[in-house]
Amino acid sequence: MAEQDRAAPERCCSYHTVQRRFPVLRWLPQYSLQWLQFDLVAGVTVGLTVVPQALAYAEVAGLPVQYGLYSSFMGCFVYCLLGTSKDVTLGPTAIMSLLVSAYAFHDPTYAILLTFLSGCIQLAMGLLHLGFLLDFIACPVIKGFTSAASITISFNQVKNILGLRDIPRQFFLQVYHTFRRIGETRAGDAVLGLACLAALVGLRAMKCHIPRIRRVELVSIRISRLIVWAAATARNALVVLFAGLVAYSFQVMGSQPFTLTGETPQGLPPFQLPPFFKATANSTVPFSEMVQELGAGLAVVPLMGLLETIAIAKAFASQNNYRIDPNQELLAMGLTNLLGSFVSSYPVTGSFGRTAVNAQTGVCTPAGGLITGILVLLSLAYLTSLFYYIPKAALAAVIICAVAPMFDAGIFRTLWRVKRLDLLPLAVTFLLCFWEVQYGIVAGVLVSGVLLLYTIARPRIKVSGQGVLLVQPASGLHFPAVEFFRDAMHRWALAASPPRCVILDCTHISSMDYTVVMGLADLLQEFQRRGVTLTFSALQAHVLQVLLSADLEGFQHFPSLEEAEKGHGVDLDGSSRVLLYNASRENMLPTSGLIQ
Amino acid sequence: MAEQDRAAPERCCSYHTVQRRFPVLRWLPQYSLQWLQFDLVAGVTVGLTVVPQALAYAEVAGLPVQYGLYSSFMGCFVYCLLGTSKDVTLGPTAIMSLLVSAYAFHDPTYAILLTFLSGCIQLAMGLLHLGFLLDFIACPVIKGFTSAASITISFNQVKNILGLRDIPRQFFLQVYHTFRRIGETRAGDAVLGLACLAALVGLRAMKCHIPRIRRVELVSIRISRLIVWAAATARNALVVLFAGLVAYSFQVMGSQPFTLTGETPQGLPPFQLPPFFKATANSTVPFSEMVQELGAGLAVVPLMGLLETIAIAKAFASQNNYRIDPNQELLAMGLTNLLGSFVSSYPVTGSFGRTAVNAQTGVCTPAGGLITGILVLLSLAYLTSLFYYIPKAALAAVIICAVAPMFDAGIFRTLWRVKRLDLLPLAVTFLLCFWEVQYGIVAGVLVSGVLLLYTIARPRIKVSGQGVLLVQPASGLHFPAVEFFRDAMHRWALAASPPRCVILDCTHISSMDYTVVMGLADLLQEFQRRGVTLTFSALQAHVLQVLLSADLEGFQHFPSLEEAEKGHGVDLDGSSRVLLYNASRENMLPTSGLIQ
Repeated sequence: MAEQDRAAPERCCSYHTVQRRFPVLRWLPQYSLQWLQFDLVAGVTVGLTVVPQALAYAEVAGLPVQYGLYSSFMGCFVYCLLGTSKDVTLGPTAIMSLLVSAYAFHDPTYAILLTFLSGCIQLAMGLLHLGFLLDFIACPVIKGFTSAASITISFNQVKNILGLRDIPRQFFLQVYHTFRRIGETRAGDAVLGLACLAALVGLRAMKCHIPRIRRVELVSIRISRLIVWAAATARNALVVLFAGLVAYSFQVMGSQPFTLTGETPQGLPPFQLPPFFKATANSTVPFSEMVQELGAGLAVVPLMGLLETIAIAKAFASQNNYRIDPNQELLAMGLTNLLGSFVSSYPVTGSFGRTAVNAQTGVCTPAGGLITGILVLLSLAYLTSLFYYIPKAALAAVIICAVAPMFDAGIFRTLWRVKRLDLLPLAVTFLLCFWEVQYGIVAGVLVSGVLLLYTIARPRIKVSGQGVLLVQPASGLHFPAVEFFRDAMHRWALAASPPRCVILDCTHISSMDYTVVMGLADLLQEFQRRGVTLTFSALQAHVLQVLLSADLEGFQHFPSLEEAEKGHGVDLDGSSRVLLYNASRENMLPTSGLIQ
Repeated sequence: MAEQDRAAPERCCSYHTVQRRFPVLRWLPQYSLQWLQFDLVAGVTVGLTVVPQALAYAEVAGLPVQYGLYSSFMGCFVYCLLGTSKDVTLGPTAIMSLLVSAYAFHDPTYAILLTFLSGCIQLAMGLLHLGFLLDFIACPVIKGFTSAASITISFNQVKNILGLRDIPRQFFLQVYHTFRRIGETRAGDAVLGLACLAALVGLRAMKCHIPRIRRVELVSIRISRLIVWAAATARNALVVLFAGLVAYSFQVMGSQPFTLTGETPQGLPPFQLPPFFKATANSTVPFSEMVQELGAGLAVVPLMGLLETIAIAKAFASQNNYRIDPNQELLAMGLTNLLGSFVSSYPVTGSFGRTAVNAQTGVCTPAGGLITGILVLLSLAYLTSLFYYIPKAALAAVIICAVAPMFDAGIFRTLWRVKRLDLLPLAVTFLLCFWEVQYGIVAGVLVSGVLLLYTIARPRIKVSGQGVLLVQPASGLHFPAVEFFRDAMHRWALAASPPRCVILDCTHISSMDYTVVMGLADLLQEFQRRGVTLTFSALQAHVLQVLLSADLEGFQHFPSLEEAEKGHGVDLDGSSRVLLYNASRENMLPTSGLIQ
């Protein structure tokens, strides 16, 4: 990529550049009937997954259910044109819905404005090539966040399984109120919810244990396996459909033991400008105030959306042997959100579950998304009246089964074994996410940043040698390490009596900033004042260039450690010369101290 | 120091520990008459500098002049007991006065509360050993700040030289209004101000050119040189005294062409609790609200105070061959501010100018400060009525001469030559400091932090070798670099056709976090999937430990690069084996690519 960028000016408006911006141009000319076949099957399968999930996630986001579907089709069309991964499907996801519920006050107006603004921010980030910002979100932070999110989202649905109402949004209050009012559980909802859960878990387990279909087997066995596979893959749709039928039967019989989704506006969403102000009964909230109220959401939502999409795209690209372009993904998602806000979508991102379904069914190009998008539009146009009968408990079961596997209990044990210090950002993120998602992420990023800076500010320094001291920083020297390094030099060389000459082995130093140069200049002066020398060895060419251009007084450099030792040997008395000549690096180790 | 800390538990309440907390115990038992002699001279000289400076800096801080003196004595006494540097003198300084004027709304109540809270924060930081935070303020940020401060403080005094009134505080408005109203210049102030400036510049120039007094010379020559030296050293006091006499003469003659300091309350400040609320004519501002109004000042003032003191202490410690303890300095300054707030002091810090005077006059112990403190108290007790006659223009000249040398024009040229990238934090700090001091510092720290993180996120990676690829990160791999590294490996090894085996030379990698381990695990999997190998070589022992504990699938390690090459040689066909055997690291360079 860096290479491509460097060469970019030459072919700014070439067909290649257009292809990079519209990856559809790469695969469309080669599109074949065989691909169409696979894409059709994958598109339909994903469609059967996305419709019930969309209804359920809208519930998580605290919005009316139709908004889930409004958010599910734009991504399919835009990604088909701009996406660089064949597998990724954009749409509503559990985590994004959780974020929307935290930032949009359960109000569609705010949610749609958030979509529009997130789209603009993501587009801008894509155009400015800011995708690299994601590099600063460390793995433990992501793990802590997803694990906490899986718990909060799951628990958020317990109230729907139990048929409880008016439970507050905040996690701790939710836990408290859910347990306090557990006696108010509605039997119908609870039975249906648990049954749906059991069915979903059972179908998923079956899917994991289907043996590969082999051509030598009987047709009847192959067909029965195909049915099981289809049922397991479309299990969300089946469970919701079945629960809806049960609820409908009860309705026809005149009783209704379930809490239902209820009235859903019929038809496609209007195509209109996103709301730039909010008119209430007796006042108008202007744009600036709405933006202020969205607050941190304007940073968290675009970044998390980006993070999810790119993490998923990279995972599947690696699995299926292709490369994605993070900045192009950013553009695709930005445009999806920007255009989505015109059709009342809430912010979308890449969905792990549906992307996995897409990949498993053997999708060949992003064209599969077109089929999914059309299915969603058809549902909106013709099926919304049927959504009335979908029991909320069934949707809750769908969500719980989708997010529960995101909880990674093993990560705590793994980190304890591999790198205990990384438990800190994990634990901070995990715990704070129960309080507020954004605090968790921000605190986790800060903690991992502080740990990183600590590593840089306190580099390991190996000190060895008799007579002349050999000082070897184990990693680069950057400005936060200067004072520490000077202290170490004082302690080991200047504060000794008599003061000792030092060879500074710069093998591991790959860059040097001005503060470090100044620190070394001061050290050189102090060494001169005490009548001892500080010699540099093994400087890399560009680092040497920096030091030379600083005109340091008394600066001495030897290309290699051996030459530096020889150079010092000449100035030393016999005994220490012998010691130095004999001292290979390994021999020095026993007398050495390791500072950190 | 780290060593001392490690051994601390053993001797927690020993005499040594008490000595560390009260460094006075180290030098007092050895105090001699000869030391007393030097300390006396130094104390008086510093006293003659601090009195006029204190009056002038109070003006910069936007407070009545007596507050400058109120702030000048506590530091002398406390530092005598707790300080670890013989040279440092704590008291009002130009930069701290500028900060106080920015945060304390020109209101003594806020200034004293700020002193109290800063003292508490500094004490807490000292007790928590947080002195290391200063490491994150890079040299270009400090240079940018001091250069900008020298300009703003100097220009702030131009209005006093010209005798202009009611000029706004904000720098840009100040420049505009000063030039717009330059016609209103009062002739008396302007003439006196410029005369004082000329006198100060002349005396300083003389001081620089006095030859060393030699014993062989005539007594008369030696005495005249001593007089010149004394006049040059106490030039601030002389100029202010002379200007005061001129003003007094005019007053006696019945006319007054100068703007005078005016009435100053007689006597020592009351010893009382710092103000925890502010009572105005018709309302009371409670503590919480005052704290809120002080805002960022509560971070900037303690940190900058700390920064100035420690920078100065380190500079003189290095010059005079002793070591200071940053955390003990922090305690000394914290206690000075804490106690100072009981005697109406505004925040103080180490003064570069007076510390230099102290060192030059040959002070031997911090006892010199006692003399200075007593001189200030005497001035407060008996001389305040005389302060009435001090012309403001004379004080302005004193300030301008004190801060002008802080402007370092050469730094821009030096950075251009040595490290161009560091011009960015310098320029950002320098320019933003004209707007608001704290924005400048914070932005500078952020920019230098971002540059540092960029270096870490985009390490140089040397790629060389034919057949088997040799990949050598030039510095450590930390989590922000993982994606970049994976991209590089894809581009150079996996995306090649056919995919290439890689030896990853980890010589420069001194630590590894979990995100990097996961990235390497993913890479190992991808290499296996393509049927090529990724071999690690030259891992440091503790890094190897981390990788082993992560149970990476397909992990292979050779202790040295040579063994790794041999190990691969066995699996390779003849031609590439020969190439690798012949390829020393230097020989590989011509065919290598350097990624950044």
